[in-house]
Amino acid sequence: MIGTCRLLTRLALTSRVFTSSCKSMQILETVDTFRQARRALPSNATLGLVPTMGGLHDGHISLVKQARRSCDFVVASVFVNPTQFGPNEDYTKYPRTFKEDMSLLQQQGVDLVFFPSAEEMYSPNHRCYVEPEGFDDLVEGQCRKGHFRGVATIVTKLFNIVQPTHAFFGQKDAAQVVLIKRMVSDLNIPVEIGVVPIVREADGLALSTRNQYLNPVEREAASVLHRGLVYAQDLFQKAKDDGKTAIDAEMLRTVVREEYGREPLVTAIEYVSVGSKETMQEVSKVDTAEGAIISVAVQIGKCRLIDNIVL
Amino acid sequence: MIGTCRLLTRLALTSRVFTSSCKSMQILETVDTFRQARRALPSNATLGLVPTMGGLHDGHISLVKQARRSCDFVVASVFVNPTQFGPNEDYTKYPRTFKEDMSLLQQQGVDLVFFPSAEEMYSPNHRCYVEPEGFDDLVEGQCRKGHFRGVATIVTKLFNIVQPTHAFFGQKDAAQVVLIKRMVSDLNIPVEIGVVPIVREADGLALSTRNQYLNPVEREAASVLHRGLVYAQDLFQKAKDDGKTAIDAEMLRTVVREEYGREPLVTAIEYVSVGSKETMQEVSKVDTAEGAIISVAVQIGKCRLIDNIVL
Repeated sequence: MIGTCRLLTRLALTSRVFTSSCKSMQILETVDTFRQARRALPSNATLGLVPTMGGLHDGHISLVKQARRSCDFVVASVFVNPTQFGPNEDYTKYPRTFKEDMSLLQQQGVDLVFFPSAEEMYSPNHRCYVEPEGFDDLVEGQCRKGHFRGVATIVTKLFNIVQPTHAFFGQKDAAQVVLIKRMVSDLNIPVEIGVVPIVREADGLALSTRNQYLNPVEREAASVLHRGLVYAQDLFQKAKDDGKTAIDAEMLRTVVREEYGREPLVTAIEYVSVGSKETMQEVSKVDTAEGAIISVAVQIGKCRLIDNIVL
Repeated sequence: MIGTCRLLTRLALTSRVFTSSCKSMQILETVDTFRQARRALPSNATLGLVPTMGGLHDGHISLVKQARRSCDFVVASVFVNPTQFGPNEDYTKYPRTFKEDMSLLQQQGVDLVFFPSAEEMYSPNHRCYVEPEGFDDLVEGQCRKGHFRGVATIVTKLFNIVQPTHAFFGQKDAAQVVLIKRMVSDLNIPVEIGVVPIVREADGLALSTRNQYLNPVEREAASVLHRGLVYAQDLFQKAKDDGKTAIDAEMLRTVVREEYGREPLVTAIEYVSVGSKETMQEVSKVDTAEGAIISVAVQIGKCRLIDNIVL
């Protein structure tokens, strides 16, 4: 890994620089200034991108740590992307915690932060979007029409601006991971995608900013999400060990639903999906050699929680 | 310009090589082999891409010559792209003249040819397309639904595979030029677009493979296409010289239509469009400082001819 300190003597074009001991983190707010900073990096260095919308929490930090371990340089982007918000989602109310975010990124040894305005990213004449066909029909897309198009478009733009060698996404958002891999493959984007596993509490509950809204009893009940998924995984593994070539997807859905049904604090099961690793489309049978992704969304108290497991 | 000969001693991984004197032209048929050849080029060299669907004629050659003049290395791609053919256009009958094309490219000193199969470019799970909103509503898009989406998608893929510093397109296809510029701007693609002017006969007729289907009388009549456009341009220029800030677009359309109306061999005027340089959408007034594009499609005998002029 090339030391950050050595680099930063060469970079002197930023508008703002966060400094702590010898390390500086550059914050670039325009495409042009970012590209200048990018060009100043050694051309053979690896560069890991962690795209975020700010409001950083431990999940984001696990992505940054993975990028830091894998790459010579790390870029985080902080951009609340208007095109990925559905008509009923409030873009203007999305948390914006710039100062805290910069402090966290600085602590993790991030080299460059790309922090553009909405006007910098979308001109009034903007017409071209990356459209991932079929994703709006997924269970996770049905109530967020246009969401995946917005994600695919902004990630394409960030890839073209940042030109990373690697980019990191969290397995927590399973549909997004499939989308990004699909897009990289379909459009031949020269970036290696790193998928960072879900960070879980001791009882299996996936970390989420929403967990803080659970009361102690709900918090305890919430361990059911992962438990149901593990039961389905066990069933899949047994079929595989028994030498079966496929297992009925509905059997897997039923195991999960039954486990969730046993927990009285689960007030609604929004979906239990068994989808293709390639497209996230629902499957009727899971090939034991190919696997699949089980993803769920469940209401516990007033809190909507999601989780998934890769078979 | 870096000499082609020096390079070619370093490239020995192609499936086919066309050689003439010291120059060799590599033909690569897969994404992986192309990327290997690309990596072998000096990282600071300029690389010009000329995307084609084969069936090469003088128009294509003018693009290759421009690329050859501007860049250290030249790549031509030859790929009949299935996704840009409308439902009523016959993808399978599109001319495929591989041997003649290679000979022409070789004569022009092209360094690399990317010649993939349809299977290499589109997997069965392909889902992601670059969608240029509004282009299907343009006069040139109305009868070719999905055409511009297909063009935007394949050009994005080629840019990601070839990673050119420059790419060249002909002004003859005005809507395509606006689309590509729009896409490069919207998606922040790091490629410089070169637009090569229309090559014209002495009487102004734009070169086209279709001109050969005109009989001598029709051929003479066909000069009306350009003449009408020039009259409109003169009117625009006069308004500008007179210090006017805008001119009514309908006046420009009328001048062109009237001139075409005077030619009895014009059997149909498909459209006379005055569109924005940014989006090709029809405008009602042309700002004399901004200009616009007048584009036309006309039937002469059994031949559909297109032309355009940039104000």
